[in-house]
Amino acid sequence: EWNDMQEFTKFPTKTGRRSLSRSISQSSTDSYSSAASYTDSSDDEVSPREKQQTNSKGSSNFCVKNIKQAEFGRREIEIAEQDMSALISLRKRAQGEKPLAGAKIVGCTHITAQTAVLIETLCALGAQCRWSACNIYSTQNEVAAALAEAGVAVFAWKGESEDDFWWCIDRCVNVDGWQANMILDDGGDLTHWVYKKYPNIFKKIRGIVEESVTGVHRLYQLSKAGKLCVPAMNVNDSVTKQKFDNLYCCRESILDGLKRTTDVMFGGKQVVVCGYGEVGKGCCAALKALGAIVYVTEIDPICALQACMDGFRVVKLSEVIRQVDVVITCTGNKNVVTREHLDRMKNSCIVCNMGHSNTEIDVTSLRTPELTWERVRSQVDHVIWPDGKRVVLLAEGRLLNLSCSTVPTFVLSITATTQALALIELYNAPEGRYKQDVYLLPKKMGSRFSSTFWGTGLQRVQSARTASQALLLLCDDTLPACTCLPSTPT
Amino acid sequence: EWNDMQEFTKFPTKTGRRSLSRSISQSSTDSYSSAASYTDSSDDEVSPREKQQTNSKGSSNFCVKNIKQAEFGRREIEIAEQDMSALISLRKRAQGEKPLAGAKIVGCTHITAQTAVLIETLCALGAQCRWSACNIYSTQNEVAAALAEAGVAVFAWKGESEDDFWWCIDRCVNVDGWQANMILDDGGDLTHWVYKKYPNIFKKIRGIVEESVTGVHRLYQLSKAGKLCVPAMNVNDSVTKQKFDNLYCCRESILDGLKRTTDVMFGGKQVVVCGYGEVGKGCCAALKALGAIVYVTEIDPICALQACMDGFRVVKLSEVIRQVDVVITCTGNKNVVTREHLDRMKNSCIVCNMGHSNTEIDVTSLRTPELTWERVRSQVDHVIWPDGKRVVLLAEGRLLNLSCSTVPTFVLSITATTQALALIELYNAPEGRYKQDVYLLPKKMGSRFSSTFWGTGLQRVQSARTASQALLLLCDDTLPACTCLPSTPT
Amino acid sequence: EWNDMQEFTKFPTKTGRRSLSRSISQSSTDSYSSAASYTDSSDDEVSPREKQQTNSKGSSNFCVKNIKQAEFGRREIEIAEQDMSALISLRKRAQGEKPLAGAKIVGCTHITAQTAVLIETLCALGAQCRWSACNIYSTQNEVAAALAEAGVAVFAWKGESEDDFWWCIDRCVNVDGWQANMILDDGGDLTHWVYKKYPNIFKKIRGIVEESVTGVHRLYQLSKAGKLCVPAMNVNDSVTKQKFDNLYCCRESILDGLKRTTDVMFGGKQVVVCGYGEVGKGCCAALKALGAIVYVTEIDPICALQACMDGFRVVKLSEVIRQVDVVITCTGNKNVVTREHLDRMKNSCIVCNMGHSNTEIDVTSLRTPELTWERVRSQVDHVIWPDGKRVVLLAEGRLLNLSCSTVPTFVLSITATTQALALIELYNAPEGRYKQDVYLLPKKMGSRFSSTFWGTGLQRVQSARTASQALLLLCDDTLPACTCLPSTPT
Amino acid sequence: EWNDMQEFTKFPTKTGRRSLSRSISQSSTDSYSSAASYTDSSDDEVSPREKQQTNSKGSSNFCVKNIKQAEFGRREIEIAEQDMSALISLRKRAQGEKPLAGAKIVGCTHITAQTAVLIETLCALGAQCRWSACNIYSTQNEVAAALAEAGVAVFAWKGESEDDFWWCIDRCVNVDGWQANMILDDGGDLTHWVYKKYPNIFKKIRGIVEESVTGVHRLYQLSKAGKLCVPAMNVNDSVTKQKFDNLYCCRESILDGLKRTTDVMFGGKQVVVCGYGEVGKGCCAALKALGAIVYVTEIDPICALQACMDGFRVVKLSEVIRQVDVVITCTGNKNVVTREHLDRMKNSCIVCNMGHSNTEIDVTSLRTPELTWERVRSQVDHVIWPDGKRVVLLAEGRLLNLSCSTVPTFVLSITATTQALALIELYNAPEGRYKQDVYLLPKKMGSRFSSTFWGTGLQRVQSARTASQALLLLCDDTLPACTCLPSTPT
Repeated sequence: EWNDMQEFTKFPTKTGRRSLSRSISQSSTDSYSSAASYTDSSDDEVSPREKQQTNSKGSSNFCVKNIKQAEFGRREIEIAEQDMSALISLRKRAQGEKPLAGAKIVGCTHITAQTAVLIETLCALGAQCRWSACNIYSTQNEVAAALAEAGVAVFAWKGESEDDFWWCIDRCVNVDGWQANMILDDGGDLTHWVYKKYPNIFKKIRGIVEESVTGVHRLYQLSKAGKLCVPAMNVNDSVTKQKFDNLYCCRESILDGLKRTTDVMFGGKQVVVCGYGEVGKGCCAALKALGAIVYVTEIDPICALQACMDGFRVVKLSEVIRQVDVVITCTGNKNVVTREHLDRMKNSCIVCNMGHSNTEIDVTSLRTPELTWERVRSQVDHVIWPDGKRVVLLAEGRLLNLSCSTVPTFVLSITATTQALALIELYNAPEGRYKQDVYLLPKKMGSRFSSTFWGTGLQRVQSARTASQALLLLCDDTLPACTCLPSTPT
Repeated sequence: EWNDMQEFTKFPTKTGRRSLSRSISQSSTDSYSSAASYTDSSDDEVSPREKQQTNSKGSSNFCVKNIKQAEFGRREIEIAEQDMSALISLRKRAQGEKPLAGAKIVGCTHITAQTAVLIETLCALGAQCRWSACNIYSTQNEVAAALAEAGVAVFAWKGESEDDFWWCIDRCVNVDGWQANMILDDGGDLTHWVYKKYPNIFKKIRGIVEESVTGVHRLYQLSKAGKLCVPAMNVNDSVTKQKFDNLYCCRESILDGLKRTTDVMFGGKQVVVCGYGEVGKGCCAALKALGAIVYVTEIDPICALQACMDGFRVVKLSEVIRQVDVVITCTGNKNVVTREHLDRMKNSCIVCNMGHSNTEIDVTSLRTPELTWERVRSQVDHVIWPDGKRVVLLAEGRLLNLSCSTVPTFVLSITATTQALALIELYNAPEGRYKQDVYLLPKKMGSRFSSTFWGTGLQRVQSARTASQALLLLCDDTLPACTCLPSTPT
Repeated sequence: EWNDMQEFTKFPTKTGRRSLSRSISQSSTDSYSSAASYTDSSDDEVSPREKQQTNSKGSSNFCVKNIKQAEFGRREIEIAEQDMSALISLRKRAQGEKPLAGAKIVGCTHITAQTAVLIETLCALGAQCRWSACNIYSTQNEVAAALAEAGVAVFAWKGESEDDFWWCIDRCVNVDGWQANMILDDGGDLTHWVYKKYPNIFKKIRGIVEESVTGVHRLYQLSKAGKLCVPAMNVNDSVTKQKFDNLYCCRESILDGLKRTTDVMFGGKQVVVCGYGEVGKGCCAALKALGAIVYVTEIDPICALQACMDGFRVVKLSEVIRQVDVVITCTGNKNVVTREHLDRMKNSCIVCNMGHSNTEIDVTSLRTPELTWERVRSQVDHVIWPDGKRVVLLAEGRLLNLSCSTVPTFVLSITATTQALALIELYNAPEGRYKQDVYLLPKKMGSRFSSTFWGTGLQRVQSARTASQALLLLCDDTLPACTCLPSTPT
Repeated sequence: EWNDMQEFTKFPTKTGRRSLSRSISQSSTDSYSSAASYTDSSDDEVSPREKQQTNSKGSSNFCVKNIKQAEFGRREIEIAEQDMSALISLRKRAQGEKPLAGAKIVGCTHITAQTAVLIETLCALGAQCRWSACNIYSTQNEVAAALAEAGVAVFAWKGESEDDFWWCIDRCVNVDGWQANMILDDGGDLTHWVYKKYPNIFKKIRGIVEESVTGVHRLYQLSKAGKLCVPAMNVNDSVTKQKFDNLYCCRESILDGLKRTTDVMFGGKQVVVCGYGEVGKGCCAALKALGAIVYVTEIDPICALQACMDGFRVVKLSEVIRQVDVVITCTGNKNVVTREHLDRMKNSCIVCNMGHSNTEIDVTSLRTPELTWERVRSQVDHVIWPDGKRVVLLAEGRLLNLSCSTVPTFVLSITATTQALALIELYNAPEGRYKQDVYLLPKKMGSRFSSTFWGTGLQRVQSARTASQALLLLCDDTLPACTCLPSTPT
């Protein structure tokens, strides 16, 4: 059942490892930002696996690129903490009670400043953690170093080989004298490895928390096949995650991604956004607000009607393709932008993808001899027609979000808090409450999670406080602009 | 099961029949506008029931206030037609095929210019119609006259007594030589009357289409009790109706309602909106866009977080009550604005309700001796405190929408088209497709309906045309700003 | 020098006095709203000049339509007071000091609820007032009655003849034992009358305050000719008035005017706005915000570029005329919308004018035999082409503002306060500060005026208070959403 | 007259040359972006003055950091060209006629991809150019290399010493067998040098074009002192430049600057913007549009009233300082944000300046022993209070624009086109049209300039074409979203 792994998201790098082709399944790249990979790894070609490194406390229980980068990484973590108040407030509460005391969590996620805040929060709540990366290119080496320096058993670096990838996971799972009782996964590779290599571990596992679409899909397949032997939490479908990773997050990252790559002015530009789902709604709202003239293509009639009512002209792509300055795809379909469209675009038209899949723009059709590709910046190609016309292709049609902008830390904070709460819930649930099944985080659950922000329902975590006390405590810290909640009717 | 009728919506009138107290259940007042009641009925105190009137073709098969008002009413209908292109395009298609040929529809709705367009469309589609009013105050006499002049058997006038009300319904149902086979109801009173008085009629009825919350509620009760003997369509819960009657419609009618009653300038005003559901979202968006400073109160954490992300400060009502210029309720709760809040408001604060129920503002608490009420305009009361402070109460706390503004014709067009399509569907469905149950109009159904706007799926209605032909035909007419649909990925 | 009077603004009425043609110069109709003329005057054809009326205190020193309407008018004034806090706060301060004590003001303005608040404020500041109307149709009879009941010597009614008009002015000026020492004029007719009939009065006049474009133009002509014998204040060109009467006011009144006349839904409508000056900017901003798709035509390149940067497509009118749902003119040019454009509009297209002049839409070209005009509502005509196409023409191409919506009271409050302050300034200025010239209210002056709202510079008015004390006092009352001002860098 | 030079803008660098203190006057840093300085100069410490370099055509008539970087620089120029269509369209037209044939331009500006497009356009129009940098840190070495490779005599590199600075200028001016006849200056240093060292050159100079505030100020001083001996064009005050460099540009760069430095999410954040001039208006509009809750402080009452009408709460800074997440200054005043304010900010509050001057935030007050400064990223300092509170200070209080974001290329295109047109105008003007004075580029001139974008008035430049032909030609290329202009009333 793990055989149908999808090709892993080829991660953009300067060193151009794009030819690498291997099967690592897709992790939650939608919540991940590569933009914060500051240093390049080219300065040192010795594999971390061959290095002997020790942190300042004498521990060697980690494997990172360069432990000396820890200080720089620590600063990045501190920056991230500034906009992750939900996690920080969870952490503060944990100084008394330790809801994850005894938890031994093995994790496999992107390793960035934001996930570092999550990992350190889990530690503060009482857990022991061992961690690897869910993507061979996404690790921020400095952050990994900072975690290692702080005592976390982290095994990850930017630019792992496939063999490195599984080796790192194995080092997290296969340890003498330590056995995980919780899994936090992003993409399902860790879960897969445990199933394949150490199925006995599941006897002690109290639950799996999975964030990505792909990983969740795999869990449902396992469940369907009757092979899921522990409870699992589907974090991906929480209301808050959906709204945040799509509408609100894309509203900001479309601007960020376009600006960082092209310095384009939004005011007065004509933009067509293909698709008016949550992602499209976010893109359209932001671009309209900054003075762009936005067209929408949409085949679902309800969404099309919403686009109309929101003030966008709904068109066929072919109607406007000659005149637009920017084309953005977010339909969830394949080949929305075809070679024919690309042939008709005007000079300097920018083309990019905000959808999940890499296939919305038919980039392959541009790999023909008569077209010249010129890499003008990282993630920016000029594709040049024989007559000199240039089309500006961003991230080779991959998710712009992932490749060219950061995801707002606050959004990652929401997701990370959900993960932490799911771990707490599964770890502390009385025997039998959760069966060997995937729990859907239905709206109710999403609500409970977010109500956790304000303290309602926090009593399990923090039994000494009444809900209303917790409420008062949490208001200021957590909800961005909310001085006091709830409200109606007082 | 009909015993628990709710008190009917007391309809605002100049002549102040507010003391009238009787049990007519609640009709779809959310889609109804009183603002277009142009003439007053005081000029002629003879009951229409006692008048002998004949239209220009010699027919007396109607009972309206004054058949001579037909020309004025016709103009109102023509105005309404301008923004009801969906119905008009349905009507055009019907010139060849008549999908309602043979249908005998008895209807009970508000009788306004917009419903007149619906009724005349049903006739154009082949139906025979007999019609009464679902509310004793909401009939536009001129429109009723125009319908009567055009040959529709309409029995309705503004200011019916309760006895008149049931008499009119009875005149529609109880006819020699004519028996209804379809029911279009709004509020459930017609359905109730048939159940009670003429249950045999149901043997020929192919289906009921019901629009209002109350009527739908009654149908579910009937169904639960095993007493529903024909299929019924719940129009109220279609996706499009929900979005339109709430978000998009309220976005416009909050401005219209405030302006018509108070001439208040929005720019620079501080407004608190209680509740951030679809109605609240619409109100907030409109007011923010026109330069008001908007606060939100909300107890649901997801909605509160959305309000934050949309740029509104989420507050407790008591925090801002002293400083705001306008208070708008749309929570669905009772007594959201209490006497204590009202006591603390500043001079000239405007208070109104956009929620479904009349009880969000505790108006009763203002009926005390120390406060003076001054009716300064229709629907506008100044409530005056002993120190001279005035609070401006709109529509006595009833739905502002209903009382003080019009509902955009386009919105009513969407609902009316849904009703027409539901009638067509039930009337033409093969035997057995619909059982004796309430059909929920789930998202799929709503989608199918609206896809009808663009022609996909219209083939049952209009089998000669392919979907794509119908598409081309419908694009221009129907979807407001859509020159051509669908789009992606063509 | 008064010979070049412009034809007076023909005021729209049901009774169709449009044929009346006489020379009353143009008053500040941009700040005036006819929408609040509640009662019609047709019920009583006896001229007010022939009636003997007495108010409740026994005075007959007035001439209005019907003194019995005073109570209704009083309520309208009370409603207006709710959004005119600047005037009300001026009034409060005057209870001690009376900066207009001894002032005898003769005024000639529109007589509406809002100007009534101004007049009563002047009285509260110590002035004696005699008042006539500057437009033969614009008087709200009920308000005039309320003023008369309150003791103001008002001579005005709706539907004056030209003879009535001058008779009323004369009754204000030519009084035994009372001689005006200040003039407040709107359009220049009062000033003209005094120049022509009673030039000696100018010996005692301390100054003239004039609001309208036309009146100000006349004053400059007088000044140029060396015939201006007192100082005059040009209120028309104050920064605040310009911004308010155009950008902010039109932003609201375009919505109000369209809604009241047509009930059209804005969401999804395609609208073309001709002209992107302050008026156009206001219209565009409002319509865009409510979900309309807005196009702009503009010939000034800077304004066109601003439109682009603000997110509007700049087009030629002919490009979009076939597809738009609404056409709005605000260019200041003639015949912007030609018969050819009108011929090409689609069925049910709405056409209206927000510009100053009546000539932006070539309405005359529609007065041809093949077109049928149908008056469907007050201010709404359907012009019907031979093929049945209807174009919806509002207010026969006159200013929509003026004819079909109200002007927000707050806006009028700003202008009225400016007038009051100009009167105070001229009346209290030391001899010689102002010469026999027109004072331009340059930016600085406008600033000083509005700073008056916050108290800086208020010391002349209210010498006991320091500026900062006044500031604290005024903040809450005056600036709409401003709890405390000024701010930076405290 | 040159003695009152202002201290030059200390340019941010990693290598921390901030201690350098010398008198180079202020150039137009508001239109300049440092963000595109890609490579660091630390790899090679040999001074370019000591290097012997030759371009591929054998020329050594330049002095840049490293001629081998030319290819990279060429790509940056190509990227810039994509959004500088106005210049490119000027260039295209010049292939026939060469309006600058014979012009020998000596220039001193920032040397970036965008100015390179300007310089190469001037060359294409027929001019010979010699160029130096107006700021010792702002040169993009790769771009300078690309210019040198293309044959432009450029003398500039990033990190010049003061001696280098004047040496480079001298190398442009003091050439055997070549004498400049036009000056394009940014900051006035070049003009100053010529006045001081080579006054005779002015005999042949036909005019000076100056862009910066400082340079223009100096020119007026010269003119006042009767020492200006050639005509000069003040580009700084063109309408378009003012609107673009402030309102529209800041609307985008505030988002860009905050995102690149902090990855902060805008949605739900509370932001206070100090000052509501054009810059403040741009910042407020953008942040509000992205879901921030924005407060404004403002002392000018007109601007404050505009802020209110635009929907912002006007407050005193001290009122909100405890609760806001971001503080942005753009007042033009000093010490708007004081140490006391900084002491009261909450943890993780971001503080930055969008105003012209470095002194709006009292950064000096933070240089005290009890506070710890931690440089967490380039341009980002955490200032840490003894209790652990961190304030995030961006660019040490310098202009965020300048330091942390790019300026949209389109904006620079507008300014650069204005400069080109000013050069053409002065160079081609008949003797005597322009005197020895500073020409103000009044609104009319700004208009003519921008009308040039659409071709009206282009006839002097391009006499063969009629305005309307030129119009058709230019429409598509130039105005961002404008398919055809002008429009009304066609």
